[in-house]
Amino acid sequence: MSDIQSGLQLRSLVKKSGELELSLQRIPTPEPGPDDVVVRVEATPINPSDLGLLLGPANMATAKYSGTKDSPVVTAKVPEQVLPGLAARLDESMPVGNEGAGVVVKAGSSPQAQALMGKMVAGIGGAMYSQYRVLKARDVLPLPAGTTAAEGASCFVNPLTSLAMTVTMKKEGHKALVHTAAASNLGQMLNKICLKDGIELVNIVRSAEQEKILRGIGAKVVCNSASPTFLQDLTKALAATGATIAFDAIGGGKLAGQILSCMEAAANMTAKSYSRYGSTVHKQVYIYGRLDLGPTELGRDFGMAWGVGGFLLTPFLMKLKPEEAQALRQRVVDELKTTFASHYTKEISLQEALQADIIAAYNKRATGEKYLINPNKA
Amino acid sequence: MSDIQSGLQLRSLVKKSGELELSLQRIPTPEPGPDDVVVRVEATPINPSDLGLLLGPANMATAKYSGTKDSPVVTAKVPEQVLPGLAARLDESMPVGNEGAGVVVKAGSSPQAQALMGKMVAGIGGAMYSQYRVLKARDVLPLPAGTTAAEGASCFVNPLTSLAMTVTMKKEGHKALVHTAAASNLGQMLNKICLKDGIELVNIVRSAEQEKILRGIGAKVVCNSASPTFLQDLTKALAATGATIAFDAIGGGKLAGQILSCMEAAANMTAKSYSRYGSTVHKQVYIYGRLDLGPTELGRDFGMAWGVGGFLLTPFLMKLKPEEAQALRQRVVDELKTTFASHYTKEISLQEALQADIIAAYNKRATGEKYLINPNKA
Repeated sequence: MSDIQSGLQLRSLVKKSGELELSLQRIPTPEPGPDDVVVRVEATPINPSDLGLLLGPANMATAKYSGTKDSPVVTAKVPEQVLPGLAARLDESMPVGNEGAGVVVKAGSSPQAQALMGKMVAGIGGAMYSQYRVLKARDVLPLPAGTTAAEGASCFVNPLTSLAMTVTMKKEGHKALVHTAAASNLGQMLNKICLKDGIELVNIVRSAEQEKILRGIGAKVVCNSASPTFLQDLTKALAATGATIAFDAIGGGKLAGQILSCMEAAANMTAKSYSRYGSTVHKQVYIYGRLDLGPTELGRDFGMAWGVGGFLLTPFLMKLKPEEAQALRQRVVDELKTTFASHYTKEISLQEALQADIIAAYNKRATGEKYLINPNKA
Repeated sequence: MSDIQSGLQLRSLVKKSGELELSLQRIPTPEPGPDDVVVRVEATPINPSDLGLLLGPANMATAKYSGTKDSPVVTAKVPEQVLPGLAARLDESMPVGNEGAGVVVKAGSSPQAQALMGKMVAGIGGAMYSQYRVLKARDVLPLPAGTTAAEGASCFVNPLTSLAMTVTMKKEGHKALVHTAAASNLGQMLNKICLKDGIELVNIVRSAEQEKILRGIGAKVVCNSASPTFLQDLTKALAATGATIAFDAIGGGKLAGQILSCMEAAANMTAKSYSRYGSTVHKQVYIYGRLDLGPTELGRDFGMAWGVGGFLLTPFLMKLKPEEAQALRQRVVDELKTTFASHYTKEISLQEALQADIIAAYNKRATGEKYLINPNKA
């Protein structure tokens, strides 16, 4: 436990020498401004999107563990050839943790901040792997009475990303969507949203076990990319649903291009005349993850009406009108224990987050395994 | 020469059996409706964009030449594995030729059509490799007195595509642009536009000869992808110009991804803080050609703010307001003998267009070589 005057914060440092160093630093808690609140963080998940900053591109097989039980230190080698890409973070100790939840233990003088005193709130904005985090009152999401920190810890990244997919689908004029690595925590959430909202969703998974997980929560259309009939199955599913937009968590390899090819084949099933430029139906793949770090290979046998691009939550939210963004956040709160419920493998302390066996577990990025840090765990 | 009652038309037929057949068919000239004009086509270019429909994916090394001098026939084998992709055109004889120019020799009863009688006009819309082509009066572009058919033959594809690149650059919020295979006819036109309009253009070429061509017409920034310092040269040029959008005629291979990587490196030169998602600058590559038919390989070392997509003139024009499209067409007419002047290797007849040596020449798609068909050549 800790005093509110200061708290531990997990830090990730990549040195110019090519060494990653993870440690816990004791940081004085800043005095809140009039519109700020101090949140005692009690639950903050380790999302795939946190690992990039936390572990960087370090080779964790080279990791060494030192320090004390209360103040562990992890070091590992970063391959020399990737250092130039990290120029802007070299020798700068970075706090980590996109999102989390906890209790407001101190509040600024404004009525908006004061109204949050003692409340359980969720927050986003980095540096959540901290015992205390100062946030703007207007940026936190007050949670209904009776919500635990664990229940509120993942209010933003997965819920808003999966909602963003259905919003993007509608805004860009598509009628159904495709999702890859679809048995993930986020993928299961997306299935619940689509089932509830009557949106047709084509799930792409890589194993029979993952297919079973999704069928178990009611998914109607699941294609297994390990099946020899995958491309035919996918084309049939795309023709049946009319899905012309996909969100891809994998990134590398041929899958994004295969999705576009199958979309084109599905569009041409109903084509009335030949066009050497392919169908006029716009086909889009957004890559939002990088489970496969290899290059994306696009066969380009899908005409001229296509796009592939990166997709990231924050710029998406920034383009929304404030009332649209608020409606999404409110929906997450309203359905926190149903549609947007998250499940965790284990709750760990900040110290445990730097233990060899636990790093190995969360760095596997295995479907269904997710760790929750409680920075104030006794 | 021919009678206006009927005229020869070049046809491309891919049979279900896997054979491409090129021939000349005598077609009755349709009676023009009230708003139509009949154009005696006197000049129509063989653009790279025509070759896809004309030769399809046939293997021209297997070509056989038969028929008579006046009515030649060319046959060639289409590889079996690409036939499914051609389903919509199999056993259907297709007319060819995107654009051209000629004299209005007959006009419908409407005042708009009658006003064009005897005028030299340019047209687009396919089937221009014909002695007579009926077009809507509102769709043709009347050319100033004294313009020859050869001067007006290429009013649309290259001029409007190169203008479309600068318009897209502005509409999507970029301040400078990149072009590949930049010594092409289209690329030279784009340089003239950019020099005239004060737009910074990064030209990417594949040889010292191509670089020389562009320097010769005043191009300021030329990067040679065959140079060992290409990636550094390109990054420097992108940083200096601020170009964040590229139009790529090549399509296959690593170039599109390299452009995005160099754009990201240029953006990060001025980055103030590290973001593990890369720079927030949106980087875009549009692929509009396929000089390399291989897959597009994207290394994805360029953050999350990026897009790659197909680019095609017709959908671009359809999204413009009518007055915007008209302004582009008018500019082409106004600058037809300067900015938009095209140069041709040779003027050929419809019969010559089916000769072995001439097919071999235009199918090379060599920079600077361009053939002009005069369907009414004596």
